[in-house]
Amino acid sequence: MVSLDDLKALAHPAETKMVLFVLDGLGGLTRKGDTKTELEAARTPNLDRLAAEGNLGLADPVAPGITPGSGPGHLGLFGYDPLRYRIGRGVLEAVGVDLEVTERDLAARGNFCSVDAQGLITDRRAGRIPTEVCARLTPLLEKIGLSGVELIVRPLREHRFVVLFRGDGLEEGLSETDPQDTGKPPLPVRPERPQAKRAADVANRFVAEARRVLSAEHPANMVLLRGFSKYPSLPKLTDIYGVRAAVIAVYPMYRGLAKLVGMQAVKTGDRVADEVSTLEAVFGQFDFFFVHVKKTDSAGEDGNFDRKVALIEEADALIPRLMALKPDVLVVTGDHSTPAPFRAHSWHPVPVLLWSKWCRPDGAPKFSERECRFGGIGHIRGAELMPMIMAHAERLTKFGA
Amino acid sequence: MVSLDDLKALAHPAETKMVLFVLDGLGGLTRKGDTKTELEAARTPNLDRLAAEGNLGLADPVAPGITPGSGPGHLGLFGYDPLRYRIGRGVLEAVGVDLEVTERDLAARGNFCSVDAQGLITDRRAGRIPTEVCARLTPLLEKIGLSGVELIVRPLREHRFVVLFRGDGLEEGLSETDPQDTGKPPLPVRPERPQAKRAADVANRFVAEARRVLSAEHPANMVLLRGFSKYPSLPKLTDIYGVRAAVIAVYPMYRGLAKLVGMQAVKTGDRVADEVSTLEAVFGQFDFFFVHVKKTDSAGEDGNFDRKVALIEEADALIPRLMALKPDVLVVTGDHSTPAPFRAHSWHPVPVLLWSKWCRPDGAPKFSERECRFGGIGHIRGAELMPMIMAHAERLTKFGA
Repeated sequence: MVSLDDLKALAHPAETKMVLFVLDGLGGLTRKGDTKTELEAARTPNLDRLAAEGNLGLADPVAPGITPGSGPGHLGLFGYDPLRYRIGRGVLEAVGVDLEVTERDLAARGNFCSVDAQGLITDRRAGRIPTEVCARLTPLLEKIGLSGVELIVRPLREHRFVVLFRGDGLEEGLSETDPQDTGKPPLPVRPERPQAKRAADVANRFVAEARRVLSAEHPANMVLLRGFSKYPSLPKLTDIYGVRAAVIAVYPMYRGLAKLVGMQAVKTGDRVADEVSTLEAVFGQFDFFFVHVKKTDSAGEDGNFDRKVALIEEADALIPRLMALKPDVLVVTGDHSTPAPFRAHSWHPVPVLLWSKWCRPDGAPKFSERECRFGGIGHIRGAELMPMIMAHAERLTKFGA
Repeated sequence: MVSLDDLKALAHPAETKMVLFVLDGLGGLTRKGDTKTELEAARTPNLDRLAAEGNLGLADPVAPGITPGSGPGHLGLFGYDPLRYRIGRGVLEAVGVDLEVTERDLAARGNFCSVDAQGLITDRRAGRIPTEVCARLTPLLEKIGLSGVELIVRPLREHRFVVLFRGDGLEEGLSETDPQDTGKPPLPVRPERPQAKRAADVANRFVAEARRVLSAEHPANMVLLRGFSKYPSLPKLTDIYGVRAAVIAVYPMYRGLAKLVGMQAVKTGDRVADEVSTLEAVFGQFDFFFVHVKKTDSAGEDGNFDRKVALIEEADALIPRLMALKPDVLVVTGDHSTPAPFRAHSWHPVPVLLWSKWCRPDGAPKFSERECRFGGIGHIRGAELMPMIMAHAERLTKFGA
């Protein structure tokens, strides 16, 4: 794979606009007794026209056989080899709620849980308390006094929260406290390397104090912590390619991921059509747009084939509005496959459609996994897509004389 | 990619003959409103027959999205990963005018430029002086006395020249002197690593002397230097595979590139038919033949679709003469794409045709970019082609027991 340093040396400015339209979990599977995936079953006349004019391909977001989480899947799409560049869950959640993560921070994902009088876990998710309850409790956690360490605690949805331990010498490399079962006590945090000793002590003191301040708050009378991680040192996409990049996403995590690579988050509404309206509104202000559609993935995880089909069709219906903006490059793909018959993220390669006026047209009759096997892009790694986008936007100079 | 060391360990002798017939810039694009690339529009009955009997594929000379210069494009074809093996601009220009570059040489590309009385640049290209003026001035530069360093200076086109600093301890790692703007003085050469200190001193003395000897030569009264580079330490293709290799090319740069990997240059005429005659004449003396056709690339750069089509047809008409020599392997491909509609080198993958009696035949109806998407070679990196050529020539033994 071309190094980011090499790409930075090749990047040169242009006036071109690029749109990366990500239908989360796009790749699918056929239902038993059927021959069509979700994408193949969907009526997508607009995407099909772009497939004929542009190029198709299949991408392995991480590598063949590897099922990507949302972080690695998107890092791949943004041009970073996910095997090399890794982002911890804690940091991912923190940036996902618009927290500014600094280099002194150690982030962790927390769950409120229920424990009995003996301290044994009775519910790992505290009965999925409403988000409002979570939001009432996190300030109690934030007030815990830990000498030399500032605490920033933010509610997520239901029983979930994120905590930043801000202080000196808080290194990553910590075990999680969730025993993954009820009837057991939360595990102590263990340092997985010597440098993480201080951080482990701090986290254990936090957990002990949390139990104290939450003692009257059943069912949310205890916490579990995992995904301890520091801010990753990633070169910024905006620096590598010299682009102004925006993220338009409903869900905080995807905004957070994009911000990690230098994109600017733009406020948008809840529907895909709202996201497209936002794109239209800010199209003049940026060069690169990452537009994220979440619900295709959710439908896949729910095993709802027909809803995923309908959501793909809804996205297709918005393509004319995208094209009316006259982007120089439009890519439609997923960050991974979430086949409804599989009900989860999967390792199956992801269909990719790249349209630009500089495509050698594939002439494909349809945007589908089947046609993607024969497309001009070939079968690539996710991280190989970004240089192609930049090339088609005429933003990379010749390599060597 | 298989390492060159591994390939060397696998190579074994055979009596087989291989021809690598490179149509420079072969890959193309469709014209607006049309559906055929240059290669697809060309009538190529001879290549089409080989496509049916042999294998097709697409190659990214460097990596997806990366537009190769001629150096990296050819290095890829010769089996060297261009991201790993790099040839500096200075060396490329030197071999391009048939200069013998030795290991004691530091090469640089020069431009004549114009400076005012204060030494500030008024024209970075000295008004693009005619080549004849350039050729009159380079001997003045060559006569500059630098103790312990021999100077070899050759004119290129217009204001361009190449200089070899021949002496001991001249290491690469020098900054360029072009400030990329007028109204500024040329920059001093800075060593980018400690070993390059002596070379920087030598280059700076050369530039100072150049200003003195050119003082009366306005507009070409100063020089700018860039692309300082040493002869690359490449394992020789001839050593890796144990072949006697010849280059048949009209243009010096391609002969030079081939000589860098150990090929022997054979004198030839100006036309492609002359090159084939040369091939016929020396076919008994070598095992591997790199035959280079330049004009397909020039037609692409000129945006002349029809001329590129005609040149491809001209090459096709010579295929029966190539096949009459009974090569064991014939490869027809390009070093990169130069689509006429794009008028420049581009990142688009390059069509590859490999014919040998050991092909599992593709049965393709035509040698075209479209058919190459479905070919038995698949979608490869340029440098992966050479092991396939050697394999089909029965020159690689089994890897492992």
